[in-house]
Amino acid sequence: MMAGIPMYQASIATLTRSLKILDTILAKGAAHAEAHKIDPAVLIGSRLYPDMFALARQVQVATDTAKGCAARLAGVETPKFEDTETTFPELSARIAKTIDFLASVRPEQIDGSEHREIVLKLGKHAITFDGQAYLLNFVLPNFYFHVTTAYDILRHCGVEVGKMDFLGSLSA
Amino acid sequence: MMAGIPMYQASIATLTRSLKILDTILAKGAAHAEAHKIDPAVLIGSRLYPDMFALARQVQVATDTAKGCAARLAGVETPKFEDTETTFPELSARIAKTIDFLASVRPEQIDGSEHREIVLKLGKHAITFDGQAYLLNFVLPNFYFHVTTAYDILRHCGVEVGKMDFLGSLSA
Repeated sequence: MMAGIPMYQASIATLTRSLKILDTILAKGAAHAEAHKIDPAVLIGSRLYPDMFALARQVQVATDTAKGCAARLAGVETPKFEDTETTFPELSARIAKTIDFLASVRPEQIDGSEHREIVLKLGKHAITFDGQAYLLNFVLPNFYFHVTTAYDILRHCGVEVGKMDFLGSLSA
Repeated sequence: MMAGIPMYQASIATLTRSLKILDTILAKGAAHAEAHKIDPAVLIGSRLYPDMFALARQVQVATDTAKGCAARLAGVETPKFEDTETTFPELSARIAKTIDFLASVRPEQIDGSEHREIVLKLGKHAITFDGQAYLLNFVLPNFYFHVTTAYDILRHCGVEVGKMDFLGSLSA
Protein backbone atom coordinates (compact mmCIF):
# COMPACT_ATOMS: atom_id res chain seq x y z
CA MET A 1 0.00 0.00 0.00
CA MET A 2 2.60 2.55 1.03
CA ALA A 3 6.26 2.61 0.20
CA GLY A 4 7.72 5.03 2.72
CA ILE A 5 10.85 7.05 2.12
CA PRO A 6 13.78 4.95 0.84
CA MET A 7 16.62 5.06 3.38
CA TYR A 8 19.04 6.12 0.63
CA GLN A 9 16.98 9.21 -0.17
CA ALA A 10 16.61 10.18 3.49
CA SER A 11 20.34 9.69 4.17
CA ILE A 12 22.88 9.75 1.33
CA ALA A 13 20.90 11.94 -1.07
CA THR A 14 19.89 14.39 1.66
CA LEU A 15 23.37 14.62 3.19
CA THR A 16 25.05 15.04 -0.20
CA ARG A 17 22.66 17.83 -1.12
CA SER A 18 23.35 19.68 2.12
CA LEU A 19 27.13 19.16 1.97
CA LYS A 20 27.13 20.93 -1.40
CA ILE A 21 25.17 23.76 0.21
CA LEU A 22 27.68 23.93 3.07
CA ASP A 23 30.48 24.18 0.52
CA THR A 24 28.71 27.10 -1.19
CA ILE A 25 28.22 28.87 2.15
CA LEU A 26 31.90 28.45 3.02
CA ALA A 27 32.85 29.81 -0.42
CA LYS A 28 30.87 32.94 0.45
CA GLY A 29 32.85 33.15 3.68
CA ALA A 30 36.13 32.91 1.77
CA ALA A 31 34.97 35.56 -0.72
CA HIS A 32 33.89 37.83 2.13
CA ALA A 33 37.30 37.52 3.79
CA GLU A 34 39.02 38.40 0.54
CA ALA A 35 36.71 41.34 -0.28
CA HIS A 36 37.04 42.83 3.21
CA LYS A 37 40.73 42.04 3.64
CA ILE A 38 40.03 39.80 6.63
CA ASP A 39 42.53 37.02 7.33
CA PRO A 40 40.51 33.87 6.44
CA ALA A 41 42.01 32.22 9.52
CA VAL A 42 39.95 34.61 11.64
CA LEU A 43 36.70 33.24 10.21
CA ILE A 44 37.97 29.64 10.33
CA GLY A 45 38.75 30.09 14.03
CA SER A 46 35.57 31.97 14.94
CA ARG A 47 33.07 30.52 17.38
CA LEU A 48 29.87 31.66 19.10
CA TYR A 49 31.09 31.04 22.64
CA PRO A 50 34.52 30.25 24.07
CA ASP A 51 33.78 26.57 24.72
CA MET A 52 31.90 25.93 21.49
CA PHE A 53 33.60 24.52 18.39
CA ALA A 54 35.10 26.98 15.92
CA LEU A 55 34.05 27.02 12.26
CA ALA A 56 36.60 24.44 11.06
CA ARG A 57 35.51 21.93 13.69
CA GLN A 58 31.83 22.45 12.84
CA VAL A 59 32.65 21.42 9.26
CA GLN A 60 34.72 18.46 10.45
CA VAL A 61 31.91 17.15 12.66
CA ALA A 62 29.27 17.70 9.96
CA THR A 63 31.34 15.66 7.49
CA ASP A 64 32.12 13.02 10.15
CA THR A 65 28.41 12.64 10.82
CA ALA A 66 27.71 12.22 7.10
CA LYS A 67 30.45 9.68 6.39
CA GLY A 68 29.71 7.79 9.62
CA CYS A 69 26.08 7.51 8.57
CA ALA A 70 26.94 6.21 5.09
CA ALA A 71 29.41 3.68 6.50
CA ARG A 72 27.23 2.43 9.35
CA LEU A 73 24.08 2.06 7.27
CA ALA A 74 26.00 0.29 4.50
CA GLY A 75 27.97 -1.84 6.97
CA VAL A 76 31.37 -0.75 5.64
CA GLU A 77 34.41 0.82 7.29
CA THR A 78 34.23 4.56 8.00
CA PRO A 79 37.09 6.36 6.24
CA LYS A 80 39.30 8.22 8.70
CA PHE A 81 40.08 11.86 7.91
CA GLU A 82 42.81 13.66 9.84
CA ASP A 83 41.33 16.79 11.41
CA THR A 84 43.99 19.15 10.10
CA GLU A 85 42.02 21.63 7.96
CA THR A 86 42.92 25.26 8.66
CA THR A 87 41.96 27.00 5.39
CA PHE A 88 38.83 27.36 3.25
CA PRO A 89 40.31 25.31 0.38
CA GLU A 90 41.15 22.51 2.84
CA LEU A 91 37.61 22.54 4.28
CA SER A 92 36.22 22.44 0.74
CA ALA A 93 38.48 19.47 -0.06
CA ARG A 94 37.21 17.66 3.05
CA ILE A 95 33.63 18.21 1.95
CA ALA A 96 34.49 16.94 -1.54
CA LYS A 97 36.14 13.80 -0.07
CA THR A 98 33.02 13.20 2.01
CA ILE A 99 30.74 13.60 -0.99
CA ASP A 100 32.98 11.16 -2.93
CA PHE A 101 32.69 8.60 -0.16
CA LEU A 102 28.91 9.01 -0.03
CA ALA A 103 28.82 8.55 -3.82
CA SER A 104 30.72 5.26 -3.46
CA VAL A 105 27.86 3.78 -1.45
CA ARG A 106 25.10 2.36 -3.65
CA PRO A 107 21.38 2.66 -2.94
CA GLU A 108 21.08 -1.12 -2.63
CA GLN A 109 23.57 -1.05 0.27
CA ILE A 110 21.46 1.50 2.14
CA ASP A 111 17.86 0.73 1.27
CA GLY A 112 16.43 -1.75 3.72
CA SER A 113 18.75 -0.61 6.54
CA GLU A 114 15.80 0.75 8.57
CA HIS A 115 16.01 -2.16 10.99
CA ARG A 116 19.76 -2.81 10.80
CA GLU A 117 21.38 -2.62 14.25
CA ILE A 118 23.65 0.40 14.54
CA VAL A 119 26.03 0.91 17.45
CA LEU A 120 27.23 4.45 17.97
CA LYS A 121 30.00 5.30 20.40
CA LEU A 122 29.57 8.74 21.94
CA GLY A 123 32.37 9.34 24.41
CA LYS A 124 32.17 6.55 27.00
CA HIS A 125 28.72 5.46 25.94
CA ALA A 126 27.65 3.04 23.24
CA ILE A 127 24.13 3.54 21.95
CA THR A 128 22.29 0.89 19.99
CA PHE A 129 19.68 2.00 17.48
CA ASP A 130 17.95 0.57 14.49
CA GLY A 131 18.95 2.28 11.25
CA GLN A 132 15.81 4.41 11.10
CA ALA A 133 16.14 5.80 14.65
CA TYR A 134 19.86 6.35 14.12
CA LEU A 135 19.13 8.41 11.01
CA LEU A 136 16.13 10.36 12.31
CA ASN A 137 17.16 10.94 15.94
CA PHE A 138 20.91 11.26 15.65
CA VAL A 139 22.31 11.76 12.14
CA LEU A 140 19.96 14.37 10.72
CA PRO A 141 19.68 16.57 13.85
CA ASN A 142 23.42 16.34 14.51
CA PHE A 143 24.36 17.01 10.89
CA TYR A 144 22.02 19.99 10.55
CA PHE A 145 23.19 21.27 13.93
CA HIS A 146 26.76 21.59 12.68
CA VAL A 147 25.86 22.91 9.22
CA THR A 148 23.57 25.51 10.79
CA THR A 149 26.15 26.50 13.38
CA ALA A 150 28.78 26.90 10.65
CA TYR A 151 26.29 29.19 8.88
CA ASP A 152 25.51 31.03 12.13
CA ILE A 153 29.22 31.62 12.82
CA LEU A 154 29.74 33.14 9.37
CA ARG A 155 26.55 35.18 9.67
CA HIS A 156 27.63 36.39 13.10
CA CYS A 157 30.93 37.49 11.51
CA GLY A 158 29.03 39.58 8.96
CA VAL A 159 29.26 37.29 5.94
CA GLU A 160 26.40 38.01 3.54
CA VAL A 161 24.72 34.62 3.47
CA GLY A 162 20.98 34.24 3.66
CA LYS A 163 18.38 31.63 4.41
CA MET A 164 18.02 30.72 0.75
CA ASP A 165 21.72 29.84 0.66
CA PHE A 166 21.07 27.44 3.51
CA LEU A 167 17.99 25.89 1.89
CA GLY A 168 19.52 25.67 -1.58
CA SER A 169 17.52 25.30 -4.75
CA LEU A 170 14.01 24.09 -3.99
CA SER A 171 12.66 23.73 -7.50
CA ALA A 172 12.07 20.17 -8.65
CA MET B 1 11.14 -6.21 -0.16
CA MET B 2 11.87 -2.94 1.60
CA ALA B 3 9.47 -0.76 3.49
CA GLY B 4 11.27 2.57 3.73
CA ILE B 5 10.68 5.06 6.50
CA PRO B 6 6.99 5.78 7.10
CA MET B 7 6.30 9.45 6.38
CA TYR B 8 4.66 9.83 9.82
CA GLN B 9 7.86 8.73 11.58
CA ALA B 10 10.05 11.02 9.47
CA SER B 11 7.75 14.00 9.98
CA ILE B 12 5.30 14.12 12.92
CA ALA B 13 7.23 11.83 15.27
CA THR B 14 10.58 13.51 14.51
CA LEU B 15 9.22 17.05 14.78
CA THR B 16 7.35 16.30 18.02
CA ARG B 17 10.48 14.81 19.57
CA SER B 18 12.55 17.86 18.66
CA LEU B 19 9.89 20.36 19.77
CA LYS B 20 10.01 18.80 23.24
CA ILE B 21 13.79 19.20 23.16
CA LEU B 22 13.44 22.84 22.13
CA ASP B 23 11.08 23.38 25.05
CA THR B 24 13.66 21.90 27.45
CA ILE B 25 16.41 24.12 26.02
CA LEU B 26 14.22 27.21 26.44
CA ALA B 27 13.46 26.18 30.03
CA LYS B 28 17.22 26.19 30.66
CA GLY B 29 17.33 29.69 29.20
CA ALA B 30 14.56 30.83 31.55
CA ALA B 31 16.30 29.22 34.54
CA HIS B 32 19.59 30.86 33.56
CA ALA B 33 17.93 34.28 33.39
CA GLU B 34 16.42 33.77 36.83
CA ALA B 35 19.65 32.45 38.40
CA HIS B 36 21.75 35.28 36.98
CA LYS B 37 19.14 38.01 37.49
CA ILE B 38 18.97 38.69 33.77
CA ASP B 39 15.72 40.12 32.42
CA PRO B 40 14.31 37.19 30.40
CA ALA B 41 13.29 39.72 27.73
CA VAL B 42 17.00 40.22 27.00
CA LEU B 43 17.40 36.57 26.01
CA ILE B 44 14.07 36.51 24.14
CA GLY B 45 15.24 39.50 22.08
CA SER B 46 18.80 38.30 21.50
CA ARG B 47 20.07 37.56 18.02
CA LEU B 48 23.39 36.63 16.39
CA TYR B 49 23.45 39.53 13.95
CA PRO B 50 21.35 42.68 13.65
CA ASP B 51 19.34 41.46 10.64
CA MET B 52 18.85 37.90 11.89
CA PHE B 53 15.74 36.82 13.78
CA ALA B 54 15.78 37.11 17.57
CA LEU B 55 15.16 34.08 19.80
CA ALA B 56 11.35 34.45 19.94
CA ARG B 57 11.07 34.56 16.15
CA GLN B 58 13.31 31.49 15.79
CA VAL B 59 10.84 29.57 17.95
CA GLN B 60 7.89 30.96 16.02
CA VAL B 61 9.34 29.89 12.68
CA ALA B 62 10.36 26.44 13.98
CA THR B 63 6.80 25.84 15.18
CA ASP B 64 5.35 27.28 11.95
CA THR B 65 7.47 24.88 9.95
CA ALA B 66 6.27 21.94 12.05
CA LYS B 67 2.57 22.77 11.94
CA GLY B 68 2.76 23.67 8.25
CA CYS B 69 4.31 20.28 7.55
CA ALA B 70 1.65 18.38 9.48
CA ALA B 71 -1.16 20.32 7.80
CA ARG B 72 0.22 20.12 4.26
CA LEU B 73 1.07 16.43 4.39
CA ALA B 74 -2.33 15.59 5.92
CA GLY B 75 -4.18 17.95 3.56
CA VAL B 76 -5.85 19.92 6.36
CA GLU B 77 -5.93 23.60 7.21
CA THR B 78 -2.82 25.00 8.97
CA PRO B 79 -3.82 26.53 12.32
CA LYS B 80 -2.90 30.21 12.51
CA PHE B 81 -0.97 31.36 15.57
CA GLU B 82 -0.59 35.07 16.29
CA ASP B 83 3.11 35.87 16.60
CA THR B 84 2.80 37.70 19.91
CA GLU B 85 5.02 35.66 22.27
CA THR B 86 7.38 37.81 24.34
CA THR B 87 8.08 35.59 27.38
CA PHE B 88 9.45 32.10 28.01
CA PRO B 89 6.07 30.79 29.28
CA GLU B 90 4.40 32.12 26.12
CA LEU B 91 7.00 30.44 23.88
CA SER B 92 6.51 27.21 25.82
CA ALA B 93 2.75 27.50 25.34
CA ARG B 94 3.26 27.97 21.60
CA ILE B 95 5.37 24.82 21.45
CA ALA B 96 2.72 22.93 23.43
CA LYS B 97 -0.02 24.12 21.03
CA THR B 98 2.09 22.97 18.10
CA ILE B 99 2.67 19.54 19.66
CA ASP B 100 -1.09 19.27 20.31
CA PHE B 101 -1.83 20.02 16.67
CA LEU B 102 0.73 17.47 15.51
CA ALA B 103 -0.87 14.92 17.86
CA SER B 104 -4.25 15.57 16.24
CA VAL B 105 -2.95 14.30 12.91
CA ARG B 106 -3.15 10.51 12.62
CA PRO B 107 -0.48 8.31 11.00
CA GLU B 108 -2.96 7.20 8.33
CA GLN B 109 -3.37 10.84 7.21
CA ILE B 110 0.39 11.18 6.74
CA ASP B 111 1.65 7.79 5.62
CA GLY B 112 1.54 7.54 1.87
CA SER B 113 1.99 11.30 1.39
CA GLU B 114 5.43 10.82 -0.25
CA HIS B 115 4.02 11.62 -3.66
CA ARG B 116 1.29 14.05 -2.61
CA GLU B 117 1.67 17.41 -4.35
CA ILE B 118 2.65 20.13 -1.89
CA VAL B 119 2.62 23.81 -2.81
CA LEU B 120 4.70 26.05 -0.57
CA LYS B 121 4.52 29.82 -0.79
CA LEU B 122 7.82 31.47 0.09
CA GLY B 123 7.48 35.22 -0.30
CA LYS B 124 6.47 35.87 -3.92
CA HIS B 125 7.34 32.37 -5.06
CA ALA B 126 5.27 29.22 -5.02
CA ILE B 127 7.24 25.99 -5.02
CA THR B 128 5.71 22.67 -5.92
CA PHE B 129 7.17 19.50 -4.37
CA ASP B 130 6.11 15.98 -3.76
CA GLY B 131 5.65 15.21 -0.06
CA GLN B 132 8.99 13.45 0.26
CA ALA B 133 11.05 16.29 -1.27
CA TYR B 134 9.06 18.84 0.76
CA LEU B 135 9.91 16.98 3.96
CA LEU B 136 13.56 16.17 3.20
CA ASN B 137 14.65 19.33 1.36
CA PHE B 138 12.57 21.98 3.08
CA VAL B 139 10.89 20.98 6.35
CA LEU B 140 13.68 19.16 8.15
CA PRO B 141 16.55 21.53 7.20
CA ASN B 142 14.41 24.59 7.90
CA PHE B 143 13.08 23.24 11.19
CA TYR B 144 16.52 22.19 12.45
CA PHE B 145 17.94 25.51 11.27
CA HIS B 146 15.63 27.44 13.60
CA VAL B 147 15.91 25.03 16.54
CA THR B 148 19.72 25.09 16.23
CA THR B 149 19.81 28.86 15.92
CA ALA B 150 17.59 29.20 19.02
CA TYR B 151 20.12 26.97 20.82
CA ASP B 152 23.06 28.94 19.38
CA ILE B 153 21.54 32.25 20.55
CA LEU B 154 21.13 30.94 24.11
CA ARG B 155 24.61 29.40 24.05
CA HIS B 156 26.05 32.66 22.75
CA CYS B 157 24.35 34.40 25.71
CA GLY B 158 26.12 32.07 28.13
CA VAL B 159 23.25 29.68 28.92
CA GLU B 160 24.62 26.31 30.07
CA VAL B 161 23.11 24.07 27.43
CA GLY B 162 25.11 21.34 25.73
CA LYS B 163 24.98 19.14 22.69
CA MET B 164 23.26 16.34 24.59
CA ASP B 165 20.41 18.74 25.40
CA PHE B 166 20.04 19.33 21.67
CA LEU B 167 20.15 15.62 20.78
CA GLY B 168 17.87 14.53 23.64
CA SER B 169 17.68 11.00 24.94
CA LEU B 170 19.14 8.57 22.42
CA SER B 171 18.42 5.30 24.18
CA ALA B 172 15.78 3.15 22.61
